[in-house]
Parts: sequence; C-alpha cells; structure tokens
Amino acid sequence: MVLVNGAFIDSVKANDRGLMYGDGVFRTLRIVNGVPLHWERHYLRLKRDCDAIGIVCPEIECLTRELDAVHGDCVAKIIVTRGVGARGYLPQVCSEPTRIIMTSPLPAANFREIRAHLCTLRLSHQPRLAGIKHLNRLENVLARSEWREDDVPEGLLLDIAGNVIEGTMSSLFLYSSGGLIAPDLSLCGVDGVQRERIFEFSSGNGVPMEIRSFGIDFLKQADEVFLVNSVIGLWQIVEIDGMIWQKGPFCENLRNWLQ
Amino acid sequence: MVLVNGAFIDSVKANDRGLMYGDGVFRTLRIVNGVPLHWERHYLRLKRDCDAIGIVCPEIECLTRELDAVHGDCVAKIIVTRGVGARGYLPQVCSEPTRIIMTSPLPAANFREIRAHLCTLRLSHQPRLAGIKHLNRLENVLARSEWREDDVPEGLLLDIAGNVIEGTMSSLFLYSSGGLIAPDLSLCGVDGVQRERIFEFSSGNGVPMEIRSFGIDFLKQADEVFLVNSVIGLWQIVEIDGMIWQKGPFCENLRNWLQ
Repeated sequence: MVLVNGAFIDSVKANDRGLMYGDGVFRTLRIVNGVPLHWERHYLRLKRDCDAIGIVCPEIECLTRELDAVHGDCVAKIIVTRGVGARGYLPQVCSEPTRIIMTSPLPAANFREIRAHLCTLRLSHQPRLAGIKHLNRLENVLARSEWREDDVPEGLLLDIAGNVIEGTMSSLFLYSSGGLIAPDLSLCGVDGVQRERIFEFSSGNGVPMEIRSFGIDFLKQADEVFLVNSVIGLWQIVEIDGMIWQKGPFCENLRNWLQ
Repeated sequence: MVLVNGAFIDSVKANDRGLMYGDGVFRTLRIVNGVPLHWERHYLRLKRDCDAIGIVCPEIECLTRELDAVHGDCVAKIIVTRGVGARGYLPQVCSEPTRIIMTSPLPAANFREIRAHLCTLRLSHQPRLAGIKHLNRLENVLARSEWREDDVPEGLLLDIAGNVIEGTMSSLFLYSSGGLIAPDLSLCGVDGVQRERIFEFSSGNGVPMEIRSFGIDFLKQADEVFLVNSVIGLWQIVEIDGMIWQKGPFCENLRNWLQ
C-alpha cells in the first residue's frame, strides 16, 4: 500500500525535493493488527527532524488519519519531504510538504542473537545533520552493500575517527558491569525511538546509562552488545569479525521489556 | 518537460531508491538551440559517478536519444537512480536504474562579478562520496538556506577542517601570481565538468595549476577568485563578507575561452 498526500497513488512528482536532494525525513515503524506501535513517539521524532531542517511537519491528526488505512501486521514507512520545488537548492518556492506512507511485509527472519559485519565505510561528521533520520542515506547504502550473507543481518558502523556509532539500520548499546553505554551521536548517527526507549528503561529501572565516545577495543570489553530498532526489536551481537560475546541475561530481560 | 525512462510522464514510483535514500547521481547541463553542451563530458562524469556507487549507468545512446526531445535554450537535469527496490538499504532486488530528464528555463539573472555569502555550514569529510554528484544534497540545501538576498547568487563552502572547497552549486578556483589553484576534493566537494575544462585550459595554455588544501587566509591573498558551472559559466567573486577582490583580466579572458 502506498499513500501519497492521502491519496492511494504510488508515485511522486519527479521534481519533488525528496528525490532531487534527499530533502526530507522519515520514520519506520511496526504495525500490529492495524495499530502503529509507539506512534506518538515516532511522530515527535518526525517533527523534531522536520524542524531541524526547516520542513513544516504535517499535523499529527493528518498522519494518524492516513495511518488508519493500514491494516494487519506490517512495517510502515512514513516519509515527509519539503515538497515540489523549482530547480536550485534554495527551498524558496515549495509546495506543501509531501507525505508518503508505504507498507511492506514484516521481515521473514526473526533473529535473537546475530553475527554482525564490521563495515569498512566510516560515517562522516556532520553536526548539523547528526541524529536526524533524513533521506540522505548513501552512506548506509554503501555500508549495507559490503556483505551479502543471509545469516549476517546487520553491520556495525564506525565514524571517520574510529568511534563505534550504530548499525546500518539500528541503534547500538553496550551493557558492562551493571550499566548501559550508548554512543555519542553529536557528530553522526541516527537518534531513533527505540534508543529513546532504552534511555527510559535505564532511568525507570535504576540501570545507569552513560553516553560517550568509544572505539572497537572498548566494545570488545563489554559484557553484552546489542542493537535495537522499531522493526527488529532487539538483536544481541554475539560475533563481529572474530570478536565474541556470550549470550547474556541482560539482553534477554530487555527484549521482554521492549515487547 | 519531464521524461522518466523515456516516457513523457512527470512522476516516479514512491519506492524509487532515489527518493528513499538519495541513491542516485545527476548532472545539470545547458541546452542551446536543442544541443546539450559538452554532452559527452557530462555523460562520462555521470558514468563515473554511477560506477562509484555501483549503479549501472544507462548507455550513452539511450540518453542521447532521450535528450533529442529537448528543444530550444534551457537547463536540463539528468538523474539516474538505482531504481525501484524493496525496503532496506541493501541494493539487492532492484529494477533497472531510473532515468529522469527534466528541463527548466535558463536563469533570468546574468551575473559576471558577484558578492558571495560565507556559509556557516561546513562540509563533512566522506572520501567514499567525495567528488561524486550524488543525490544526497542536504548539506547544499542547508547552506543555500542561509541567505536570501537576490543580489548574492552564491555561497562559499568550507569543510569541517576549515578548508575552502567550492560554491553551493559551483566549482571554485583561485588565480594568483600567474597560476591557477584548485581546492583538493579528495574528502568532499563535487568534481564537475567545468572544473575539468579549467584543468584543460590550464594545460592547453601553459597556465600552471596546483591542487591543494587552503583556508580563508590564503583565499584572501589571491589575485582573482572565481566560480564555474555548466549553467552560469564563470562568475568572478569580488566580495565575500567584507573581503574584496578587484575585477581582473584573467577571469575576463577565461570566461571568453569557456564560451
């Protein structure tokens, strides 16, 4: 199913700035029995990301109404672009922002513990775009192109300084000595809804959380390493490039809490 | 006029990877009396950029035939995306690449000497994408959003290390003590057709050319500073943020050569 600006059409204008410049933002969320999970949180992130690049975010009522057209269990992707504009980078004479809602089947594979690929592509530092789930995702495409093994569902991304940042489509956390550690995303990376939920788990359950920069050597020392996103839930990483972590009880508990 | 995959339609599928991820490349060129200027050079750059991110570039015969539909004097933008794909960054199950040709009027204003804005946005370093004219252009959009004065047609972009790189839509050169200086684009920036032509001017006319990194202080000392692209031709910069350069004879000669 594809809805563009509320209509059941599956195409957008070729001069939409979303296509011409990647000038837009998106969210991906899980729909269960027609209900979008954590919708309000996703909307707040969508709006925050729109605000960050100066796009007028559609009202929540509008998107909620459009999401009503989605039934059953699936993945919904919501894209908001700056809209159709004249040639040129200046976002001066734009139409209304374009809203796109498209659904796809839930992923077939259901992992719990995974092997991850260590990506050679390094994320660039752009503080003006860090944290934002925007449509400029060529780094992710190039990183995800580095491996094809079906049993390696995710890759680990470092930044150009060697800091461990995230998965190509997921947020990364470490659990060590009874506390959680999250990568600093002030220079790159995507700050998603499930990351926010892990912060809430931390404060609600008395598990200390530290946000910091760290490299591969620090990652190696962690008791448990895991990835979260709104579609996959939680994947514990048990191997990256010969580095091994044991399956751990913390991830098991956290997975249950997330569900 | 918009041509998508050779047909006179003005829309693309909402799940085209060009929209979802900015997963594509483009060229902008000038059409004079129906003839695309420097078409072969543009095609070679388009192909080089496709190759760099693993997109199969359409054959030149195909695009040449489609450009035959463009008449008169205008600007043509050619976009090639990886095509329609399933959700997910992995470019696995893609259709054919999508070809888009769209035209727009030539710019109304015809500058020769300009004032430029000094952008606060700094370009990030991504060697894997440096030089490529890809569709991830949010940095350019944000930079171009920094000013609105009609008589300031371009902005100067520095990178995160403070090196002077380019204009938001043009390539930058310095002329100093009888030689040309071009910014090093190995970490960011767009390596365009007109930049290539300036290199050819240099070697064909015995004007030495140096590619190097430099900051604002070095820029200030240049005899002449100018910008080129396929639509605007050559603009000499006479002021940026209080820094002044005199109108110079080198730029005047080079503009004539370019035409």
